[in-house]
Amino acid sequence: MSTENKEFFPDIKPIIYNPQASVDDVLVLKHYNQDEIILGKPMHEWLRFSVCFWHTFRGLGADIFGAPTFDRPWDQQFDSMTVAKNRLRAAFEFFTKLGIKYFTFHDRDIAPEGETIEQTEQNLDEIVKLTKELQKQTGVKCLWGTANLFANPRYMNGAATNPDAHVFAYAAAQVKKAIEVTHELGGENYVFWGGREGYMSLLNTDVRKELDHLAAFLRMAVEHKKKIGFKGQLLIEPKPKEPTKHQYDYDAQTVMGFLSFYGLDKDFKLNIEPNHTTMAGHAYEHDVEMCSRYGMLGSIDSNTGDPSLGWDTDQFPMNLRDCAFIVKTIITQGGLAPGGLNFDCKVRRESTNLEDMFIAHVGAMDCFALALRKMARLFEDKKYDALVKQRYASYAQTDIGKKIEAGTATFEELHAFIKKNGEPAKTSGQQEKYEAIFNRYLD
Amino acid sequence: MSTENKEFFPDIKPIIYNPQASVDDVLVLKHYNQDEIILGKPMHEWLRFSVCFWHTFRGLGADIFGAPTFDRPWDQQFDSMTVAKNRLRAAFEFFTKLGIKYFTFHDRDIAPEGETIEQTEQNLDEIVKLTKELQKQTGVKCLWGTANLFANPRYMNGAATNPDAHVFAYAAAQVKKAIEVTHELGGENYVFWGGREGYMSLLNTDVRKELDHLAAFLRMAVEHKKKIGFKGQLLIEPKPKEPTKHQYDYDAQTVMGFLSFYGLDKDFKLNIEPNHTTMAGHAYEHDVEMCSRYGMLGSIDSNTGDPSLGWDTDQFPMNLRDCAFIVKTIITQGGLAPGGLNFDCKVRRESTNLEDMFIAHVGAMDCFALALRKMARLFEDKKYDALVKQRYASYAQTDIGKKIEAGTATFEELHAFIKKNGEPAKTSGQQEKYEAIFNRYLD
Amino acid sequence: MSTENKEFFPDIKPIIYNPQASVDDVLVLKHYNQDEIILGKPMHEWLRFSVCFWHTFRGLGADIFGAPTFDRPWDQQFDSMTVAKNRLRAAFEFFTKLGIKYFTFHDRDIAPEGETIEQTEQNLDEIVKLTKELQKQTGVKCLWGTANLFANPRYMNGAATNPDAHVFAYAAAQVKKAIEVTHELGGENYVFWGGREGYMSLLNTDVRKELDHLAAFLRMAVEHKKKIGFKGQLLIEPKPKEPTKHQYDYDAQTVMGFLSFYGLDKDFKLNIEPNHTTMAGHAYEHDVEMCSRYGMLGSIDSNTGDPSLGWDTDQFPMNLRDCAFIVKTIITQGGLAPGGLNFDCKVRRESTNLEDMFIAHVGAMDCFALALRKMARLFEDKKYDALVKQRYASYAQTDIGKKIEAGTATFEELHAFIKKNGEPAKTSGQQEKYEAIFNRYLD
Amino acid sequence: MSTENKEFFPDIKPIIYNPQASVDDVLVLKHYNQDEIILGKPMHEWLRFSVCFWHTFRGLGADIFGAPTFDRPWDQQFDSMTVAKNRLRAAFEFFTKLGIKYFTFHDRDIAPEGETIEQTEQNLDEIVKLTKELQKQTGVKCLWGTANLFANPRYMNGAATNPDAHVFAYAAAQVKKAIEVTHELGGENYVFWGGREGYMSLLNTDVRKELDHLAAFLRMAVEHKKKIGFKGQLLIEPKPKEPTKHQYDYDAQTVMGFLSFYGLDKDFKLNIEPNHTTMAGHAYEHDVEMCSRYGMLGSIDSNTGDPSLGWDTDQFPMNLRDCAFIVKTIITQGGLAPGGLNFDCKVRRESTNLEDMFIAHVGAMDCFALALRKMARLFEDKKYDALVKQRYASYAQTDIGKKIEAGTATFEELHAFIKKNGEPAKTSGQQEKYEAIFNRYLD
Repeated sequence: MSTENKEFFPDIKPIIYNPQASVDDVLVLKHYNQDEIILGKPMHEWLRFSVCFWHTFRGLGADIFGAPTFDRPWDQQFDSMTVAKNRLRAAFEFFTKLGIKYFTFHDRDIAPEGETIEQTEQNLDEIVKLTKELQKQTGVKCLWGTANLFANPRYMNGAATNPDAHVFAYAAAQVKKAIEVTHELGGENYVFWGGREGYMSLLNTDVRKELDHLAAFLRMAVEHKKKIGFKGQLLIEPKPKEPTKHQYDYDAQTVMGFLSFYGLDKDFKLNIEPNHTTMAGHAYEHDVEMCSRYGMLGSIDSNTGDPSLGWDTDQFPMNLRDCAFIVKTIITQGGLAPGGLNFDCKVRRESTNLEDMFIAHVGAMDCFALALRKMARLFEDKKYDALVKQRYASYAQTDIGKKIEAGTATFEELHAFIKKNGEPAKTSGQQEKYEAIFNRYLD
Repeated sequence: MSTENKEFFPDIKPIIYNPQASVDDVLVLKHYNQDEIILGKPMHEWLRFSVCFWHTFRGLGADIFGAPTFDRPWDQQFDSMTVAKNRLRAAFEFFTKLGIKYFTFHDRDIAPEGETIEQTEQNLDEIVKLTKELQKQTGVKCLWGTANLFANPRYMNGAATNPDAHVFAYAAAQVKKAIEVTHELGGENYVFWGGREGYMSLLNTDVRKELDHLAAFLRMAVEHKKKIGFKGQLLIEPKPKEPTKHQYDYDAQTVMGFLSFYGLDKDFKLNIEPNHTTMAGHAYEHDVEMCSRYGMLGSIDSNTGDPSLGWDTDQFPMNLRDCAFIVKTIITQGGLAPGGLNFDCKVRRESTNLEDMFIAHVGAMDCFALALRKMARLFEDKKYDALVKQRYASYAQTDIGKKIEAGTATFEELHAFIKKNGEPAKTSGQQEKYEAIFNRYLD
Repeated sequence: MSTENKEFFPDIKPIIYNPQASVDDVLVLKHYNQDEIILGKPMHEWLRFSVCFWHTFRGLGADIFGAPTFDRPWDQQFDSMTVAKNRLRAAFEFFTKLGIKYFTFHDRDIAPEGETIEQTEQNLDEIVKLTKELQKQTGVKCLWGTANLFANPRYMNGAATNPDAHVFAYAAAQVKKAIEVTHELGGENYVFWGGREGYMSLLNTDVRKELDHLAAFLRMAVEHKKKIGFKGQLLIEPKPKEPTKHQYDYDAQTVMGFLSFYGLDKDFKLNIEPNHTTMAGHAYEHDVEMCSRYGMLGSIDSNTGDPSLGWDTDQFPMNLRDCAFIVKTIITQGGLAPGGLNFDCKVRRESTNLEDMFIAHVGAMDCFALALRKMARLFEDKKYDALVKQRYASYAQTDIGKKIEAGTATFEELHAFIKKNGEPAKTSGQQEKYEAIFNRYLD
Repeated sequence: MSTENKEFFPDIKPIIYNPQASVDDVLVLKHYNQDEIILGKPMHEWLRFSVCFWHTFRGLGADIFGAPTFDRPWDQQFDSMTVAKNRLRAAFEFFTKLGIKYFTFHDRDIAPEGETIEQTEQNLDEIVKLTKELQKQTGVKCLWGTANLFANPRYMNGAATNPDAHVFAYAAAQVKKAIEVTHELGGENYVFWGGREGYMSLLNTDVRKELDHLAAFLRMAVEHKKKIGFKGQLLIEPKPKEPTKHQYDYDAQTVMGFLSFYGLDKDFKLNIEPNHTTMAGHAYEHDVEMCSRYGMLGSIDSNTGDPSLGWDTDQFPMNLRDCAFIVKTIITQGGLAPGGLNFDCKVRRESTNLEDMFIAHVGAMDCFALALRKMARLFEDKKYDALVKQRYASYAQTDIGKKIEAGTATFEELHAFIKKNGEPAKTSGQQEKYEAIFNRYLD
């Protein structure tokens, strides 16, 4: 049966922008007007939204206590390659109706694994061919690709950190192909999320050996990228735990430290997922800000967790305040390109209507768009930024401050300075004032 | 030296409402216009703001790792009773300039403990006299009083739950006086927060005995209240932990269950502090909603915690979304009176300027006021409420549903119903739709 | 193909007790000697171990990020009823080789759901028949049964708390049958774990209505139990969250309060799972102790979580200290019967060897057995108990203490007592001393 | 009044070792026999216990909700320098009676701050003189010194990370002196714990600037150490939060990464406190193991937190299992010298008896001693270690494994290997087996 021209979302019309949308017109964008210029760039360039293939087209609503709840029209009982192609067509229909210009994928999301590596790669090649056609037809681009190194039982004890070199080799073979495929699809980045790169118990684990192997693996990836001429940015995505008890790429600072130690910091940036940041015990915006200030923020998996839950809920970002913090960092660093805001989110298991997929994305796009509009006021105004700069003025304006920043001061000299100048003045941190002003911009 | 007419905040003018306030005019109320009618009542009746005496006039910025940082003009080196009076005058100047109509206090906040119980009570009486005068002069009223049963070393092993009956008796003597004093000041409620009513270690604790003693204590309080003719509402404030490892009044449901078990549920309602709610692992709004739906929400200690920190930070509520949830429940139950929104918050230890005290309260008042304006739209609109009702329509509209609610259905009957009617239809929970609509009201 | 006499664990010999077992003879019991008399009863009566069917015979090692990893010889590609029977035979072989006298099950664990409720019940009846035969052959008994009201998509929005009365009715029909089946198998208890009885978002939920429905449901269960003459104990198992954001049966105190409020406290006791207790923010032993002291501890799902993880890991209890706390409570209340220590645990996803199933159970049995031996010393010694009693002696030995406990004291009388007697003496809580002594018993 | 010869603990006799101690002889060491040879070294060399001055001699039982509870005989109402000296004498009496050979201190613990920096340094010098005498008399040595850069209000916004260069300078002046004093006292290490080096709010913070300043500060410390000829090890102590919302030295990996990035990894090692490790969301033993495997474990602040509490409780380590994990790492790296096991612990606020100080230390010493005896068996046996090595054997024994470790393998080569060799075998991780064996050693 041919499904090439089938419409999978016949009841959904292309999503449009209408600032006068009623409160319950949730299939209309009230704030996101993609070509509208904000701070000198169109909104879509600031926000670079992307749909993730895995949650949105492979997620079926199963959780650890329950069976799948979603009945998707593209998941009919055909052979697996036909289903894979239908799913891909449904996805591009979805991207197009939503008006999102990018997608992201794992190798195993888009094409089924075969009996052998040859069969698996052949499946992938066939699907990649169709993907390229659909990209050409729709203009939708690939933000990044990645390899799924966590679902197959072979990786249960880790991929690049597996105690068995044979598994390490398998992971290498898989990533080799995944980078090539991402290159083929014009992917602007390639992501490493080490879902099983960690430990379940220290009792059976040699952490140093495993981390050394992980570094070796990443070095090979850099080499291979160069060899095939892939120009995309390599990204590491931190997560503290789940599925493993401890994931080595715990958070932004841990990963940046690892890259420094193993001499990989020129070749990788980070893909930050705020739901992972909060799982690591930090504020929602912490990792994004932390790596941005070191020039290491490559891309964002824009979702949210639930602060009262201890696992990855991958919810759609619907909180203006959180999105505003993220946008503030993005504006400060001048944009995210070649990275983007990838909606690594899933509709709730109970959100079983097809339209829920659209409502969720529209709600999140609008939340970021509103945040962008609000933060644009903050940046145009310049008052806020001036306040922060003033806090640190002594380093720019006093001799002692300049010397400290230049690295030429000594303890003896500073000791003499205190003997001469005595106690510093008390200066309020004014946190509530900053909060109140920030709130005024969010009004 | 006479300080009776001293102005403690000479640099601060009375806070006014100005909807055109600039983003950094943080000593101006942009949203809270106390007498403006919203949903049929003035804003101040919906919100019933209160300043807490302890954090705002006794807090000095000490934390467990550091010394006090605040230099307050009312804490000069006079004798303790003179300082207590100055502090009280400063407080009423603060309430008045801020335009807040209520305050709350612990017995030990306002008057120093003496060498003997007689001396302590005499100090308290003297201060109460001045308080009444200041209330009369300013019109500021007492939302509630309470006894501090946690700071004095005598209570280190608990007050009403102390293993030593002598300490229990001391707590009883103290609460007796505190209720009387609250009555004297026209307090509209009286609060029990059991700061040390819990355990540090199960190894040395008989939890049942301690809870039985706690119930006995509360029964005596009810009796005493009746005896002296105090008409105020008695309230229990849940908190899960800190300073104890486990506090018996863990959260709203625990306290409501305790009250039911011990037959005290007609005599007490709850005072919910959202920072305690989040420490108990719940969503910010959970306890407020939970006890409101059982008719048990008496008052709110409106503050916020930090979801990435595990202790009580008592921050000023500055998050519109959180405040909107609280206001939604308040509107649903028709108001909070005789309870209120008590700012049980402290400026950060680093916020050492006197004006920070005002900025923080203004920011929080405005945040709630804006939330009230937004939620008023939601209630006027009726769309949102209709959506929720529709979800449960089967209980109102089908025979089987009505029987279930009436308590007349049996397993056998329901079994027969399923044999006849088979599988229920699948109904989306539409969480993202609710979130998106809620966001539209917050725009 | 007949598999009636197939041995599923041919490589595993019956587990024996040998106190001289070498450190790595992990298929030998070093401490659990079932018939040995400890404190007047055989070990197996104190500990009443049970194997759970779901994790041990239905769990396949899938997690939310990965596919199943276990290849079980009983899960061959026969029709589903044949597989169900093989699995059952494997289970009884396992129970017998392990020497555990009880098992627990969900209705859906043991028999597959059919197309219709009639088919489902017929499947269940057929399997129950075989189960009874196997029980008779082996002497293994049923500790408790329960209904799975969380895996099927129909329950995604709740079972007894579903917004749709039709789903409520389905749950009722299912529980009716599950109680009958448990009765048929001689189950000594019946458990309610409300896996989806909670909310995902307060925005779309009427919590009061849902809780009223839950109470109505439980009342029907009590009625039905009486009608069919089932004498087993009804149990509720608290859990704070997962899969829902907030589960109504949050923890022991919440459930006890709910039962009191709705007048159900005479008909139900609690089944406590320590992994749920720690997820609720309490100490491992908290809920067990809390409900035991109120006469409400019915049974224990003896497992452990990981304090650094925020989800239910259902690990085997391997920590002597934790087990000792549990055993201490069990001894204090004189035993757990008709409840037991049900190993609601799963081997790790990476523990793919068949022998891992045995090793895990043996390790946990030995851990509890050692705890029992150590705690027996503590009880025989009587020193520890005397210490705790002495802490509360003032309530038994002084007039004021006796009056407080009798409920005849008043605030006025206690106030007078303090005026006369002044400050209480300072008494050390001696936590470290209790810890040190407890450690000496664990040496 | 002369207090030079006063005995501060007249009721406590020197603590002795007696393996036959009764369960409640908690002032006797049952396991720690300092000179007994274990694995070729005396116990005291493996364990290198140290008493911390701050908690044990400056802590008074205050917490954030309550006043001090301890009445210490050395804290009489003399002038502050006399009290400081008495306290010091009491401390050395305590060390000696306890039989602990090391102590640790902050500059401000031992000597009071004066009005000026000159006065402060003079106080310190005077106290250091007495300390040296007491060290000489008793043979007790200094494990490490440190500067208190968090208690004084001047540091409320940070010390080396303060927005004000004047405060940075003050911190430098203070650390200069603290290192000199530590050198004078023969300190074997010097510790940096950055109690206020972090942020309270990202809204008012430039994290990059602050971290750059922190690195500059540490570089000056290295320079100064060399200049004065101090040979002790410099150590950084990670902590994730408290008192700040986010502390830059979050955990072991974060600190190691920071040191790598800023080129400081040759000059610093880490001082790990397990209570901080668990606050960062890791297993108790995680940070100790993590930095040991990178050769960066310098010393341990051996205490414990409470997994159900979100703040630093600094409890005495009384859990054999936890101590065993720590000891396993110590033995693996061949010992901790020049670091040690510093009891950075405080008796509970309710433990007000003087003897509680001894009981707590004895309990913890015994817990570690027993752990050492148990782990010695594990190391002598060699079975456990062989199991772990075997898990990673493929890297030592196969060509592909060797090439991966040598850094000479490529993705292409590994891809070819998989094409040739196909799927790896499934290997159980056997976590429960490791746990069971580990438990056998703990029996």
